[in-house]
Parts: sequence; C-alpha cells; structure tokens
Amino acid sequence: MKDLRKIVFLGAGNLATQLALALFRKNFNITQVYSRTEESARLLAEKINTNFTTSLAEIKTDADLYICAVKDDAIPSVINSLKGVNGIVVHTAGSVDINIFDGKIQNYGVFYPLQTFSKYRDVDFQKIPIFLEANNSDNLFALKTLAISLSNNLYEATSNQRKILHLSAVFSSNFVNHMYALSEEIIEESGFEFQVLLPLIDEVAAKVHYLKPQEAQTGPAVRYDKIIIDKQLNMLSETERNQKIYQILSESIHEMTTKKH
Amino acid sequence: MKDLRKIVFLGAGNLATQLALALFRKNFNITQVYSRTEESARLLAEKINTNFTTSLAEIKTDADLYICAVKDDAIPSVINSLKGVNGIVVHTAGSVDINIFDGKIQNYGVFYPLQTFSKYRDVDFQKIPIFLEANNSDNLFALKTLAISLSNNLYEATSNQRKILHLSAVFSSNFVNHMYALSEEIIEESGFEFQVLLPLIDEVAAKVHYLKPQEAQTGPAVRYDKIIIDKQLNMLSETERNQKIYQILSESIHEMTTKKH
Repeated sequence: MKDLRKIVFLGAGNLATQLALALFRKNFNITQVYSRTEESARLLAEKINTNFTTSLAEIKTDADLYICAVKDDAIPSVINSLKGVNGIVVHTAGSVDINIFDGKIQNYGVFYPLQTFSKYRDVDFQKIPIFLEANNSDNLFALKTLAISLSNNLYEATSNQRKILHLSAVFSSNFVNHMYALSEEIIEESGFEFQVLLPLIDEVAAKVHYLKPQEAQTGPAVRYDKIIIDKQLNMLSETERNQKIYQILSESIHEMTTKKH
Repeated sequence: MKDLRKIVFLGAGNLATQLALALFRKNFNITQVYSRTEESARLLAEKINTNFTTSLAEIKTDADLYICAVKDDAIPSVINSLKGVNGIVVHTAGSVDINIFDGKIQNYGVFYPLQTFSKYRDVDFQKIPIFLEANNSDNLFALKTLAISLSNNLYEATSNQRKILHLSAVFSSNFVNHMYALSEEIIEESGFEFQVLLPLIDEVAAKVHYLKPQEAQTGPAVRYDKIIIDKQLNMLSETERNQKIYQILSESIHEMTTKKH
C-alpha cells in the first residue's frame, strides 16, 4: 500500500489553505507549497511550517502526493510541470475531468471536498463530504486512506457525477449567497440592516435538514399570489434585472409546487 | 397602560400556531381561536388549552388583543367581523398596509415577526426580530410590552419599511429555499442525495454572519468563467427555465462583483 506521507501543495488559495491546515494538524508532512503569488505561498508555508516556491521548475519530484488546488485554468500548466513524477497527482476541482491527466501523469486522481472555503475561517473537515476518483484501485485506496483521517464522509464519484455535484453546489451555495446579497441591497432601502435577516436565513437552512426543500417552500410564489407578486415586482422596477430574477424564480417555484401535487 | 391579558387568535396556520404557543408559554390568556378550518382551529386550541370557533360571528368581543394571522386575502373579512371591538386588532403580514384598518377598527397595529414558521417545528422567539406599528403611541406601547416578553429584537417599522423587509425576506428565504430545491433536482441525477449538500448549505448561511454576502461570493460567475459557465449551461439544457435562471443569476453575480471594485 502506498503511504502518502510526503505531500506537495500546488496552490495557496482558500481550498488549498484549509486542506493543507487540516492535513498539517493530522501530522502529514507537507514538504513544499507552490504558488505563483509569493505572498500567498509564504503565508501558507508559514502556517504549516514548510518551504515554498513560486517556480514550477523548483517543485520537488520525490513527494508521494501532489495536491493541485489551483484555479481550473491553471491546472494544465501545473500538470505539465509534474510530468515524470512517481507520486499521485490529484486535482480538487468539481468540473475538471480526470482525463486531464491522461498520458501526462502516471498515478493520478481527484480529491473534491464539497464545501466553500475561506482562508481565514477554519472549517471542520469531519463533516465535509469528500468525493474521490483515481486512475486505478491502488491509488484510490491510497487516497481513501488519507481522506479518512480528515472526514467521515467519503464517496467515490466519477467525473460526470462530480460535474453534477458541482452544478448543484452552484445553486445551493453561489446562487444562495447571491440571494443573500440581493436581499441586502433591498433591505438597505428600508433603513434596516442585513443582520435582521440572519435568524430567518439560519432557519431556512436548518429546515432542509429535516424537510425536503420542496416541502419547506413558502411565500407568495407557492400559490402564485398575483396581488403580492405584482406589488413586489413594482418595488423592484428600478432595476430591471432584479425584476426578471423575481419573476422567473416565482414562476419556477409555482411550477415546482404544481408539479408536486 | 393597556394590559393585553386576554387574547383572541384569528388564524391557526404556521405563524398563528407558533406565536400562540410562544404566548401561551409566557402565561398569556388566549381565550379563543378562530379558523375557518375546524381541524386547524381544534388542533391549535388543544395545544394552548382554550376554546375555538369556526364562525366569525362567534368571535368574543371582550378581548384586549386580536391577533389576525390569516392569509393576506382573508384579512379584510376578519376585520369586518371585528367592527366595534375595543381591544387592539393587529395583523401579522409583511405586505399589508396598516391603513387596511382605517375607519373600521378603533385601536389597531401590526405585529410582524420576520421568520418562517412551521406548525410542527418550535422556534426560539427570543432571536426573532419583531416589527411593530400602531395607530397611536398608547397602542404601540402596549404592543411593545407584549412583544418584549417574547423577543429581545423589537423594532418600529412603518408599513413601507415593512413591505421592503418582506421583499428582502422573499429573496433570502423563499428564493434561497428554491435554490435548495433546484439543487436537489440536479443532484438526484448524480445518484447522490441532497443530504451531501447540507454541510455546504450550513457554511454558506454561517458565513454571512461575519462577512457581507457580496464579500462571501464565490463560484464561476464571480470572474464570469465562460468555460465552466458554458459547460454548466449545457448540462441544464433539458429544462429551459433552469438554464435562464443559471444565466441571469450568473450575470447578476458578475455585475455585482464588478460594481464593487
């Protein structure tokens, strides 16, 4: 069995930082951090007590595992610089197919934690679902052995499954956050602060732990209450796009409710 | 000072149930529950150990406070049946103007708790912001005295402010929940269950407690990453509306990010 003790991190962004910190706390030996941006590289390296480089040519070649957590469009160039290494190379991207490694890397896989990360907010990896894929069962097993020390929620997922997971996460994370952002813009016009919405926001998130989202749906769009909907559309008239968003989401809610019954 | 000891509840839906339970636990004397639906009326009356009626004509006339928590379009008929009462009549609706009582009721106001309620899930009222309005300062003071025994977050809000609050709540609650519902539809195609999204959903809600939503925004739409966006739009092609939702929200996120900088 492969022992993934020596790890090189490629990337020093939000995900890289939190994953590196989590592994560091579990006593994994992260021997190097690479980032194009010196400040990011140094910051992360200091946190996990290791070296860094900003040059792809200086990446160590003797690691057991290379975790490539750079932006999607930077993955190809990082892979090219890792040609010939014997360690397992994984990327952490939801929408990038595993075949990006084909013909370039010998041992490879994907390590996709389904979570949103910030550099300065530590998260509890125990609860984070991690989706794994690898080019063979040995490498998959090695990745599982590593991942199980971080999280209890491990899954195997194909590249196609992972792309769907990522798309659903865009809706339940990025788009949800944008709804918060729009509600903040709106509430400012009342003179009240966004903070008064937090108990509501928390309860809406808490509800779907025990109710299906469709069953938890409330609001004027459920019965398509035209009087309130028209009033609220009028309040949004200054910004045409917000009106369109309100309209299409209300229609979508109503359609989903109608289909259900 | 008016002492609002004797309370009649009009309505036995989600909000009415939770508000009545909260007042009951604080030893307020709820002397009657009215609902058009006998089963709802009985259920709530049993929970709070009181009588019920399904007839507007049988509503007691000697209460200190009438809490009208029926659907928006049923408010006028309830108000008509309360003509001549001396107690304070309040409604609990976000989008209904206080002037709906004008010329019909002598003492009136609005009692708007900004939260989503379910009949079978008790919520902690202490954290719920309650927005109050009344036709004079005596009645406002009486409502405040009642509300402070339930919640620490009391605010005065005009009908116009309350309408804006309600609209912002539609975005941060109803539309957010619909994003969850769409993400559930999507994730089912991967073979994974909605539950794997819960740690992400919780973290997205937790983040906006300390970061402005705009600052917390992540995902392909922030930089308008056309490669991923086009891929994801293609995955949604079967359902034209979901594609439109994805498109308009991505544009809106990108525009908001661009404006910020």
